[in-house]
Amino acid sequence: MKNVAMVLTGFNAPLERKEFEIPALQQGQMLVKIEAAGVCGSDVHMWRGEDPRTPLPIILGHEGVGRVVSIRGNREYVDGRKIETGDLILWNRGMSCGKCYACQVLHEPSLCKNRKVYGINMDCVEQPYLSGCYSQYIILRKHTDIFKVQEGVDPAILVSASCSGATIAHAYDMADLSIGSTVLIQGPGPLGVYATAFAHEIGASEIIVIGGSADRLALCREFGATTVLDRHGLTQEERRQKVFEITGGKGVDLVVEATGAQGTVEEGIKLLRSGGMYLSTGYAQPAGIEKIDFFADVVSKNIKIQGTWVSDTRHTYQAMNLVLKEQEKFSKLISHRFPLEKANEAIQIMASKKAFKAVLMPASDIK
Amino acid sequence: MKNVAMVLTGFNAPLERKEFEIPALQQGQMLVKIEAAGVCGSDVHMWRGEDPRTPLPIILGHEGVGRVVSIRGNREYVDGRKIETGDLILWNRGMSCGKCYACQVLHEPSLCKNRKVYGINMDCVEQPYLSGCYSQYIILRKHTDIFKVQEGVDPAILVSASCSGATIAHAYDMADLSIGSTVLIQGPGPLGVYATAFAHEIGASEIIVIGGSADRLALCREFGATTVLDRHGLTQEERRQKVFEITGGKGVDLVVEATGAQGTVEEGIKLLRSGGMYLSTGYAQPAGIEKIDFFADVVSKNIKIQGTWVSDTRHTYQAMNLVLKEQEKFSKLISHRFPLEKANEAIQIMASKKAFKAVLMPASDIK
Amino acid sequence: MKNVAMVLTGFNAPLERKEFEIPALQQGQMLVKIEAAGVCGSDVHMWRGEDPRTPLPIILGHEGVGRVVSIRGNREYVDGRKIETGDLILWNRGMSCGKCYACQVLHEPSLCKNRKVYGINMDCVEQPYLSGCYSQYIILRKHTDIFKVQEGVDPAILVSASCSGATIAHAYDMADLSIGSTVLIQGPGPLGVYATAFAHEIGASEIIVIGGSADRLALCREFGATTVLDRHGLTQEERRQKVFEITGGKGVDLVVEATGAQGTVEEGIKLLRSGGMYLSTGYAQPAGIEKIDFFADVVSKNIKIQGTWVSDTRHTYQAMNLVLKEQEKFSKLISHRFPLEKANEAIQIMASKKAFKAVLMPASDIK
Amino acid sequence: MKNVAMVLTGFNAPLERKEFEIPALQQGQMLVKIEAAGVCGSDVHMWRGEDPRTPLPIILGHEGVGRVVSIRGNREYVDGRKIETGDLILWNRGMSCGKCYACQVLHEPSLCKNRKVYGINMDCVEQPYLSGCYSQYIILRKHTDIFKVQEGVDPAILVSASCSGATIAHAYDMADLSIGSTVLIQGPGPLGVYATAFAHEIGASEIIVIGGSADRLALCREFGATTVLDRHGLTQEERRQKVFEITGGKGVDLVVEATGAQGTVEEGIKLLRSGGMYLSTGYAQPAGIEKIDFFADVVSKNIKIQGTWVSDTRHTYQAMNLVLKEQEKFSKLISHRFPLEKANEAIQIMASKKAFKAVLMPASDIK
Repeated sequence: MKNVAMVLTGFNAPLERKEFEIPALQQGQMLVKIEAAGVCGSDVHMWRGEDPRTPLPIILGHEGVGRVVSIRGNREYVDGRKIETGDLILWNRGMSCGKCYACQVLHEPSLCKNRKVYGINMDCVEQPYLSGCYSQYIILRKHTDIFKVQEGVDPAILVSASCSGATIAHAYDMADLSIGSTVLIQGPGPLGVYATAFAHEIGASEIIVIGGSADRLALCREFGATTVLDRHGLTQEERRQKVFEITGGKGVDLVVEATGAQGTVEEGIKLLRSGGMYLSTGYAQPAGIEKIDFFADVVSKNIKIQGTWVSDTRHTYQAMNLVLKEQEKFSKLISHRFPLEKANEAIQIMASKKAFKAVLMPASDIK
Repeated sequence: MKNVAMVLTGFNAPLERKEFEIPALQQGQMLVKIEAAGVCGSDVHMWRGEDPRTPLPIILGHEGVGRVVSIRGNREYVDGRKIETGDLILWNRGMSCGKCYACQVLHEPSLCKNRKVYGINMDCVEQPYLSGCYSQYIILRKHTDIFKVQEGVDPAILVSASCSGATIAHAYDMADLSIGSTVLIQGPGPLGVYATAFAHEIGASEIIVIGGSADRLALCREFGATTVLDRHGLTQEERRQKVFEITGGKGVDLVVEATGAQGTVEEGIKLLRSGGMYLSTGYAQPAGIEKIDFFADVVSKNIKIQGTWVSDTRHTYQAMNLVLKEQEKFSKLISHRFPLEKANEAIQIMASKKAFKAVLMPASDIK
Repeated sequence: MKNVAMVLTGFNAPLERKEFEIPALQQGQMLVKIEAAGVCGSDVHMWRGEDPRTPLPIILGHEGVGRVVSIRGNREYVDGRKIETGDLILWNRGMSCGKCYACQVLHEPSLCKNRKVYGINMDCVEQPYLSGCYSQYIILRKHTDIFKVQEGVDPAILVSASCSGATIAHAYDMADLSIGSTVLIQGPGPLGVYATAFAHEIGASEIIVIGGSADRLALCREFGATTVLDRHGLTQEERRQKVFEITGGKGVDLVVEATGAQGTVEEGIKLLRSGGMYLSTGYAQPAGIEKIDFFADVVSKNIKIQGTWVSDTRHTYQAMNLVLKEQEKFSKLISHRFPLEKANEAIQIMASKKAFKAVLMPASDIK
Repeated sequence: MKNVAMVLTGFNAPLERKEFEIPALQQGQMLVKIEAAGVCGSDVHMWRGEDPRTPLPIILGHEGVGRVVSIRGNREYVDGRKIETGDLILWNRGMSCGKCYACQVLHEPSLCKNRKVYGINMDCVEQPYLSGCYSQYIILRKHTDIFKVQEGVDPAILVSASCSGATIAHAYDMADLSIGSTVLIQGPGPLGVYATAFAHEIGASEIIVIGGSADRLALCREFGATTVLDRHGLTQEERRQKVFEITGGKGVDLVVEATGAQGTVEEGIKLLRSGGMYLSTGYAQPAGIEKIDFFADVVSKNIKIQGTWVSDTRHTYQAMNLVLKEQEKFSKLISHRFPLEKANEAIQIMASKKAFKAVLMPASDIK
């Protein structure tokens, strides 16, 4: 049995269509047919060689939803039910080792030094080769945590739950919001939309989004943003004034940074109330230096800053729950769908920022 | 190569000395020579058939410290260092599955439904047989979490860190103490001594212990108890008055239940200040009903009650740190040492409550 | 200037209509015209003499919304804005001392020993007399915390935000829910409806309500209950089976006790998953003993039980935010409105359980 | 009755000795004879005009221990006992309003916008004039929170508990340490010594202090530092290597910044393990910009940064408990004692960094 995958063999060069012989499964492994594979902003960075974790050659694609084709041995879902052939599934894209200080003493598997991630730090040279979602099939390893998805859900809307959705769930998991909290989100991309959706779901009273794209800001409104501030129409000082006006002069309880761009922290931290929290989630690649006045903006305001690195199964579960509650809304995130073999086109449109979210549909009829 | 172990083949009957052929190790397994094996109060309950988890036949002994004899493959300590032959080690007595809802979504491996515990729910029929510490050797499985112990530490003092010590660490991990907190401990047995030691280490200002044995109460004083109240010399009402006198009429911030005896909660919960916390750690076996007046003792005082079930690697690590800081004190807990073949004597003396803590020393010259 | 109030002069006897001369305000006091006064289940208990805090004679009524008539000196809202004559306001019904151990060291003003509560422990003998809401006017003291309500809000829907709403906010403030949590509520009265509304707002995936009144259960459905279980149609064992079926055999993450009736805890605690939390909020009066098997239901399941006593300004704020977001829904709670002088009728209908929530409207034309 | 105080009338000019008529007490006020007044590093900044909060003229001195001379009305300690004439007392130097959003909704009185602080933002023009500790007497206002000190305690050792000690208590109150944690402290001044003492009391296994003064580092050793790193003997890279060596390559769990000097954050944040916490406590005055690489040092390591602004009664209580447990150690902090009228000398010696801690003793015989 053969598998077709789109492989990154050199940075900045087109992915190449390759055929792989599907190897026999080892104990605990599962062969899964990819129904939808998200094209993440990180994939663009990886394609350009900007992510130091990237081995070559690699089948890209860390966001996937698929259908179980075969299982070697017995496997259970996270909730203890038996996994069956034919099931539609979502999985945690990362595997932690379960043995190290982070996993066992800190109980923070997302900090595991031995963490392996499909489509990110697993190449296609080592057996069993099929380790990314830009592919007809993937082989999920024994230690992958898997959730069952009910039939009828559009697989494309769930792919980001295992990446940007889970990252934002991780961030909110470290925050302490209550009903009536005020939240400001910097950046209306996929991370920002999830940050908006979570804030809305948790009962925030004000959800302000700052961004540079009218379309994306409009999308945030659909997810619950109560105010959107366009960077192109308002100066930084005007945005600041607006935020303090909305919050009765106090500043917001929580800022979520979701851009990864230089200067974002410097603006955002000044929008917090005393005692507020700054969740930084967007810096997945190097972006230079933020200049922080600790006296004025951190110490004298008793501010908490929390960096958020990736996510774990707990957060994938939370994000999946959110998407399943709001399927119609989340379907609006998917701006483009491509067949597998147009993966290069998908990467280009994500790189151009013309797409909000492109998804490959290897198993569908869309050709 | 042969191994001698003391095996429980029928409840309430003497353990039998059995010889086992040591099987070849599977990938990731380690053969470990037992240096010290704690005889826990739970072992007495298991021997009597009071613990429904007990399979037969079984090599008892869930508290162990040992020395690595051989390893199949490479193994790392929790801190990432390589495990070497000859190392002195302590391990988490339980193994969680790392895949279920408790392990991966709740991040609470001590709640894992698939948890296996050496000497508790692993028999000696299934390969590789050597699954308890009342034995010359044990075979530690691939998923066991292991800590290195520096040379020169008396192995006997560390055995309880992986059981009563870790349970108390788990309990305190769910509490919120600060310097100056007032703590009351019900029961001066091994759990109570650890509860005293942790309270002292964390900076409690008052540590009151209630018990029925003058010797054990005296031992608690050595671990930092500031007041001990003997149940035989004081009525319940007198004890109550004493506690409120010490706390300026408020009641204590935290009570740790460490007896498992009926009626303990009913007394202890009334000794809390409003908003205080009751940590119940002693009920490892059925002990009947506690009668609680929810209006008077829980709701109108805004009380938190927290049950504590077993522990995980995080807690074993915390307890080990505590014991290593206070080795001399903890050596006082060990009232009796026996050679392996006197395991029946050790169980009897624990059952009689004449021993505070008995330890088997299979590898030592004590015969 | 005169004030009419309905006064409790003897337990189980009709409230008496009394006229009071309105005294001159002291510095920081405010005269407020009552727009709506909630008739709380506790008022029925107080009227019967079942609440030991009740002084006589007293103007009952601790839940109020009113309009500022006059202020002696300057007063600010909690958010720092100036309070103006004519404003519509809601206030924290309790006043903590701000000086004691609970207020200043614990930061838990709801545990303040010196807490005074309008309509509960403040009589109408001591100056300035007007200390309850079954009255045309109330005099709010200097230390009362006040929120501005925008014009156009129906005052009747907000009264319970300062009592049952705030109590539930307090309870959830001590819990740790995340999106997708499963919640079970025992009792579909006002506390239970708020518990349902909060669970829904915070993103619970399953909200199960157990109750004995089909009407009240139907109301809970409107607030987000996903399953309702009628005590009259299902045995306790059937309810238990249903809950475990819904939760895939695990039990729920959180149970909120909102009945105050004997036996409630005993049922509810068995419906929790391992590691779950039991929030007890309903026992505002003595209700006898709950029999708890600590081994089976608390320790071996690592359960947390949290009693919830009253609330503070933080919780009033959270509950107010919730009601203001869902005004239409909350208007359905108000089953009866009465003029002030029909307060006895209002109490009787609450006592009979025929009303869900009765509100006195002293300032309105409803006669 | 007259009072002598040392008054700041112009920045950078000597304090002037002034006599004040002691005014009649208002209800709730107390006249207190100052036994010891700490000369804080902040006093030097205030004297130089570097703290924008400073009104003129002002009696400096926010750290005080005194003896009650007279009380108008009845006053209670925080623990509810009656305050008596002749008692030795310590108080929270700040008074929060108890009414605002920070006080009542956030439960964080240290963030109160209306906070008044003796010796910092209260001048000596407004009645009752005596509002600082560089004085024979102070008049404590009605809302000041007061603790009783047992007789026999040296007042000088307690003064810093209400300032640097309380600030560090506040910082640790927002952290989450457990037994065995590793802590690094930047700066061995008074804040750093308290950070060392708290880390030791809470059971840290490694306490590393970085500083530039051999004497101060030696003092930290007495408070529990396990390693001290002298900036003059080791380059930044050497210090980094040392820290990673001590922590087995992981980095520390917690860094406490206690210098307030530019560049401190940039060094310290790189010494944390993944998931670690950075507590910034030293920036009480403007100190320029810290340059932070958010990708490398915050996000990809999942770091938490917490600024700490001042403290409240809770923290004063915690710091007082710590000092009272370790009186002998804390007496070593007091390097110089002066009579009141040598306040200028005391400020100069603090400014020169020749003194570790200078204390004025207005009531003693030291002249």
